[in-house]
Amino acid sequence: MEPHRALRRQTVAMASRRLAIVGTGLIGASVGLAAKRAGFHVLGFDPDPQAGTLALKRGALDELGSLGDPLSVELAVVATPVGELAAVVTRTLASSGEPCTVTDVGSTKQTVCAAASGSARFVGGHPISGAIEGGAAYARADLFDDCVWFLTPLPTTDPRRYERVRAFVAALGAKPVEIGAAAHDRLLALTSHLPHALANLLANQAGGEPIEGRDPLEAAGRSLRDLTRIAGANPRVWVDVMLDNRDELRACLHQHRRLTEELERALAERDADFLTAWIEQARRNRERLHRDRT
Amino acid sequence: MEPHRALRRQTVAMASRRLAIVGTGLIGASVGLAAKRAGFHVLGFDPDPQAGTLALKRGALDELGSLGDPLSVELAVVATPVGELAAVVTRTLASSGEPCTVTDVGSTKQTVCAAASGSARFVGGHPISGAIEGGAAYARADLFDDCVWFLTPLPTTDPRRYERVRAFVAALGAKPVEIGAAAHDRLLALTSHLPHALANLLANQAGGEPIEGRDPLEAAGRSLRDLTRIAGANPRVWVDVMLDNRDELRACLHQHRRLTEELERALAERDADFLTAWIEQARRNRERLHRDRT
Repeated sequence: MEPHRALRRQTVAMASRRLAIVGTGLIGASVGLAAKRAGFHVLGFDPDPQAGTLALKRGALDELGSLGDPLSVELAVVATPVGELAAVVTRTLASSGEPCTVTDVGSTKQTVCAAASGSARFVGGHPISGAIEGGAAYARADLFDDCVWFLTPLPTTDPRRYERVRAFVAALGAKPVEIGAAAHDRLLALTSHLPHALANLLANQAGGEPIEGRDPLEAAGRSLRDLTRIAGANPRVWVDVMLDNRDELRACLHQHRRLTEELERALAERDADFLTAWIEQARRNRERLHRDRT
Repeated sequence: MEPHRALRRQTVAMASRRLAIVGTGLIGASVGLAAKRAGFHVLGFDPDPQAGTLALKRGALDELGSLGDPLSVELAVVATPVGELAAVVTRTLASSGEPCTVTDVGSTKQTVCAAASGSARFVGGHPISGAIEGGAAYARADLFDDCVWFLTPLPTTDPRRYERVRAFVAALGAKPVEIGAAAHDRLLALTSHLPHALANLLANQAGGEPIEGRDPLEAAGRSLRDLTRIAGANPRVWVDVMLDNRDELRACLHQHRRLTEELERALAERDADFLTAWIEQARRNRERLHRDRT
């Protein structure tokens, strides 16, 4: 906790700083709540007036602005769905002045970084956090506490601006981690987009056909509920993410099918040794995953 | 809650009844704790003296017997790993007298029901409950509270004995549900063995290769942790279960691969309509799954 507290003290200096948030859904409004907690003055923008008003009512914004107004802020955070990210970041860079650094919170990084290519003022970003339900109604000031927040600066990004975004992200409670945009998208395909795909696939397979007149979902135990907790998560967000990262996700799904076939072969051959080693490997990986989080 | 209380009152009549548990691991010892809570006198048997002693110390048994002793009890519950189930049920039917009804708690039902075929005294059983960790150390008296407990009587099962097992299971706090052995194994392949297989496959894929020197497990979010909570669960239990139900599980895995290929095709074709409908279907299935549990 100590490093966070130190960072928060340090960011009291940012107290009079103005932040713009473009897109006031779950993540945008949570950035607003966390930034206000850290002392920022927060301006919000949303093409949907209802969404913007909700974020204002939730206390995530100090003011609601009109898109198209010139931006006089030190930092702008673009938090639109992934499909609109590249266009909105380009527009935000154009409508903001030289003092403004622009970042985003999108789940994929290669497309938006390519769109901002050549800019000294852009730093890609992605907090590893979220919720099943979208919208400012579910926003929380502590959504980013202790979560990894990936940052993908461009080769042309001004290093001082990168430092400013790092300090901002830390002030929200998150742990900034630098990574290349391509590595980010491969990593997220494996650790987030693949799990979401498997959760949806499993929910639809288990909910498909009755077995001798019985709905399989009716008597399902905790294992199925665990594996489908994130099934059906916000289609507005996830269709974009999966399409934008389709090549990496397809590579993961292809590898997954290959590993599944290997398991089918072991079952057909009654290969108990394979199964034992495979389960023990999974146990070591699970233990490593949970150890890394504590 | 009322129906349970009524059932527990009804089973006060069972208070002087003697129950045998063969195999005193997690499930066997939990049956012991729940049966003692319901007023039974519980005899335990285990080929591993340490396991039996631990169950006795945990208070799951009133007495620890020696395997091979003739069984003078009204009900015997066989709770060995699935690989030994058929042999132990056959032996228990042989070593117990006419008054004794025999049931089991195995995760697959066709093999054990075939082994007991022709008996009037056997009823297959399977509580939809469990834990990641095996052994009496993790046993709990409330493990079966409100869980579905499948019962698979044989065509030759004496109906009065079936009623006795139903009442016993209800006295432990569970909801008895009758089903055919083949339908049970198809259902469990889909709702339990497939989720376990996917959890292990995902844990091993995500924990496989570093991405640009970075361990993918290091910065994984909650989705991966959810989908791998049951990864690596007790190999002694799960190798047996997957091998015993290998044909049904292979059919599920094969269908899963087909559905995965369909998703890969939709991604390659940038088919946003398919993805939206697929996520919305998953959402409806998840909602149905959770509604069914409340």
